[in-house]
Amino acid sequence: MQKKLIEVCYTPADYAYFKGKFEIVVVIDVLRATSAICSAINNGVNSVIPVSTIEEAKDYQKKGYLVGAERQGEIVEGFDFGNSPYSYMKPELKGKDIVLSTTNGTRAINIAKEAETVVIGALTNLDVLCEWLAKQDKNVVCLCSGWKDNFNLEDTICGGAIAENLLRTGNFASNEDSSVAAKYLYLTAKDNYFGFLKASSHRRRLKKLNLNEDIKFCLTPNQMDVIPVLRNDRIEKLKY
Amino acid sequence: MQKKLIEVCYTPADYAYFKGKFEIVVVIDVLRATSAICSAINNGVNSVIPVSTIEEAKDYQKKGYLVGAERQGEIVEGFDFGNSPYSYMKPELKGKDIVLSTTNGTRAINIAKEAETVVIGALTNLDVLCEWLAKQDKNVVCLCSGWKDNFNLEDTICGGAIAENLLRTGNFASNEDSSVAAKYLYLTAKDNYFGFLKASSHRRRLKKLNLNEDIKFCLTPNQMDVIPVLRNDRIEKLKY
Repeated sequence: MQKKLIEVCYTPADYAYFKGKFEIVVVIDVLRATSAICSAINNGVNSVIPVSTIEEAKDYQKKGYLVGAERQGEIVEGFDFGNSPYSYMKPELKGKDIVLSTTNGTRAINIAKEAETVVIGALTNLDVLCEWLAKQDKNVVCLCSGWKDNFNLEDTICGGAIAENLLRTGNFASNEDSSVAAKYLYLTAKDNYFGFLKASSHRRRLKKLNLNEDIKFCLTPNQMDVIPVLRNDRIEKLKY
Repeated sequence: MQKKLIEVCYTPADYAYFKGKFEIVVVIDVLRATSAICSAINNGVNSVIPVSTIEEAKDYQKKGYLVGAERQGEIVEGFDFGNSPYSYMKPELKGKDIVLSTTNGTRAINIAKEAETVVIGALTNLDVLCEWLAKQDKNVVCLCSGWKDNFNLEDTICGGAIAENLLRTGNFASNEDSSVAAKYLYLTAKDNYFGFLKASSHRRRLKKLNLNEDIKFCLTPNQMDVIPVLRNDRIEKLKY
């Protein structure tokens, strides 16, 4: 059997090189967009509509949607919430369709959307996602959201975790140096994400904003068994 | 004393983010352009003129220069040599001005050239370069040549080695995740570059071309004590 590919793309800026070659794209923004989306779907939110710009987010707000909007780690003024996963765990959101726009994560989702399948990855849904990916017999690329088109440590480690898991099945191979490096970084970090990521620039950025609880939550693997999937421009719960 | 910055930029495509903020740029293309340049300068070549395009290289050839040109790992037809370090160790090159154009390395040098100081880094001149950088009291960015604007393992490890060396002096700091990751990758690789880089895509590419001797040479640290420096569009020996 021909092995399938598992690769890690570090930023949306690098994605042109990978685009079109992979049936499944896993979009990752550990701190905090994809962790928040997993929490929302796990909480029973019907769908999350990812939008790239604040203008689109405002248009949805005018139509009566609940809208989360974050830039530079902070809630954008006038919106209902930012991208703290805790905001998406509220009981009143169950069954609702909500809208989300973030600095990096929703942009990555929109860049990926021409792929056959786009799923949402985070450390919080790591194992269930890897198990599902392993069964698909498709080529997989992890698209890290990065920070303004720059490499980011926590997304790369999550991508490396997915790569390492799939490579271990024996049915996948990685050809790109970025994937090999991500796997090694994951192996270095895996016994203590929180300690390892002390050095992460975005963690420092969020810590300044007193978001340590959010960070701890986002760096705690396997808290939920949902796989959010993009369908017709909305993120829903994958039935698997 | 304010600490100076040491950062690692993975590819020329990422360099826009770093440009202008660092007095010293270290250009790295371990396999093989910057390793070849170190060998040339160590061999007593008077200067290496880096040119980006084959057309420029041909113009120099018409003027009587010896010209090296490499694309995709192979010598471009009609030129005197490619970018094997061994080609630059020949006694007849001593005192000459030679020209070099490569797939990634010379492009990175030309992108960096607006910086105050551009020096050439490789594993072969690692320690002497780090000692010199540590004494300058300047901000340093390592510009990895990558492979066609993609992340590459061997250049990142070399950048990580420089970062780790400078951070250890206590006079430098890294703010970017790319630098932190490069340092960790170096620490994972440092006891066995050759083994670690078995997984490197470019090493596989060169091995197919029977360039294993070149690879071994380029991955053997501290073989020479030269620091090539860019001055008036020519790379010469830095007097330090």
